[in-house]
Amino acid sequence: MEAEQTPFMERLGRTAERHGAIDVGAKISELSAFLGDGLARVEAELRALPEGDTPLHASARHLVETGGKRLRPMCALLAARAGGEITEAARAVAVAVELVHAATLLHDDVVDVGELRRGAPAARVLYGNAASVFAGDYLLVDALRRVLAAAPRELPALLSLLREMLEGEALQLDQRGRLDGSLDTYLRIVRGKTASLFRFALAAGARAGGAREDVARALGDFGEELGLAFQVIDDALDFSGDPAVVGKSTLTDLREGKATYPLLVAMGVDPRIGAVLRAALATADGLDDAAATRLAADILATGAVERSVEFAASRAAEARGHLDVVPDADARRALSTVVTTLTHRRA
Amino acid sequence: MEAEQTPFMERLGRTAERHGAIDVGAKISELSAFLGDGLARVEAELRALPEGDTPLHASARHLVETGGKRLRPMCALLAARAGGEITEAARAVAVAVELVHAATLLHDDVVDVGELRRGAPAARVLYGNAASVFAGDYLLVDALRRVLAAAPRELPALLSLLREMLEGEALQLDQRGRLDGSLDTYLRIVRGKTASLFRFALAAGARAGGAREDVARALGDFGEELGLAFQVIDDALDFSGDPAVVGKSTLTDLREGKATYPLLVAMGVDPRIGAVLRAALATADGLDDAAATRLAADILATGAVERSVEFAASRAAEARGHLDVVPDADARRALSTVVTTLTHRRA
Repeated sequence: MEAEQTPFMERLGRTAERHGAIDVGAKISELSAFLGDGLARVEAELRALPEGDTPLHASARHLVETGGKRLRPMCALLAARAGGEITEAARAVAVAVELVHAATLLHDDVVDVGELRRGAPAARVLYGNAASVFAGDYLLVDALRRVLAAAPRELPALLSLLREMLEGEALQLDQRGRLDGSLDTYLRIVRGKTASLFRFALAAGARAGGAREDVARALGDFGEELGLAFQVIDDALDFSGDPAVVGKSTLTDLREGKATYPLLVAMGVDPRIGAVLRAALATADGLDDAAATRLAADILATGAVERSVEFAASRAAEARGHLDVVPDADARRALSTVVTTLTHRRA
Repeated sequence: MEAEQTPFMERLGRTAERHGAIDVGAKISELSAFLGDGLARVEAELRALPEGDTPLHASARHLVETGGKRLRPMCALLAARAGGEITEAARAVAVAVELVHAATLLHDDVVDVGELRRGAPAARVLYGNAASVFAGDYLLVDALRRVLAAAPRELPALLSLLREMLEGEALQLDQRGRLDGSLDTYLRIVRGKTASLFRFALAAGARAGGAREDVARALGDFGEELGLAFQVIDDALDFSGDPAVVGKSTLTDLREGKATYPLLVAMGVDPRIGAVLRAALATADGLDDAAATRLAADILATGAVERSVEFAASRAAEARGHLDVVPDADARRALSTVVTTLTHRRA
């Protein structure tokens, strides 16, 4: 079976090779070989969404086909391979996690009035909010139907996951514009919105691949730590990322007043940062370019980005710790590679 | 077991007693007695939504607790009773259909920028669009979880139903503002958005109550016809309803340029009606009060409302035809009462 170089693999390679400390290029090739044609088959299934020529269908297809990292399906497939083999059930789990992710992006963009998504105009800009709301519902239902058809044993876990994600959304919505939350609240939100989906992708992928229950559970724990590390690095890249590589302008989260990990750390170190940000966000224009750049410098000066990277590294170490029970050495190495590339990425 | 006089029963009685031709009051009491404490228990379960004090939870609770007719749960319970008894599974189906209905209302209000719902400010007005989008997702997931827990055999049908409803939304969205659709397109939309939920409520309710498969299927068919009749009467009430009884201003659909059954009939009879409406909707102010009243008079003059009522009556007759296979005479009578009250209602 020939190894597939998917767009994600290419992108991972492109962004991670800049990091001199590790030979990521070789590791990526190993990862591709390990999954065989798994990712390509999942990609094909993702592009075989139900037919229909209404704005709703166009909106759903636009989001799914614009791409993205396909990180969650890759995790599901790696877990399946680690626990046994990439079965039809495992591919259904892989497709479902990406569809759930896509559904939340569609609804998030409506809620946040997002203009760009994955470097292209957001679906709601092209097809309207209405189409995006219902397209999100549609993808959610499609994910559930696929799991019901090919991996019915995972349906209860998928529904629990959806509840968890929505509890995360609920908490985030409640915190919106407040900037008075604790790191603890931040972590609850990220566990709900992001880490829980990684947990499910890994645990359900493993079970669907035939893993022993203890291995599946360990991989779920691995997924949760990976998800936390992933999000905190994402937060840090808003300050330290190279816009040309990230593919979006930086300081976006800051300008939106989003309570990210580095911002929360910085506000804890230097209370003036919170005061300046709150005052700027209360004005009609919000935080302009110059003010954002000045504030970012103050935030960097607190060491908040380093502390974020350290925190992500500690989650990454925790994640790796869960791999001990995985019997296959190749699988352990592949999963470890994912941790490395995601915590060392520059985009 | 004492018969419960639920808010819906009261409302049905209030609005239908004005219709002199049938003794609806007595029939309603019969219906209540037939369901025992079923509706009250479903109502209690509906009010036991997951706890949480965020805007999302408040938004979900607001919509569910503002009430509404609880027509879909009543249908599910009647079908359960007709097929056997009101089991825990049947109550789960009854709760789920109301939650699905509530979820679509939350998303519809965001999409249509609705201000009022059930005589109260729409949830999105009180808690914002974001909360309403995610609260709709939340109720959907809650409905699925309840069915998984108490009536797992109905989960595939519930997911198929959700797909059908979203295909209906997709088609309606596609037709929006076009006013060039056929009655055939209208019926496809209503079958998807409205009738399919009634079909599921009846069929799944019957199965969950222990009905034979042929009875459940017949009740599903009954539900679909009932749903069509219900929607067409709803459309007609926009022209002929008494605002004081309907609880909302009339001619709302007309002002929104919504392709309702009577409007489509009227445009077929008198093409000038479509031309006038299209011209008015293209202006910044839309259709003002005086113009709406004039246009409504033209529409009434085509006999479109009478034809709508006739169409609903024909669906009602079809619905009743499906009741022959129901073994229990009391159940047949109760279901027939629902058809009568819903097609003769003034609100």
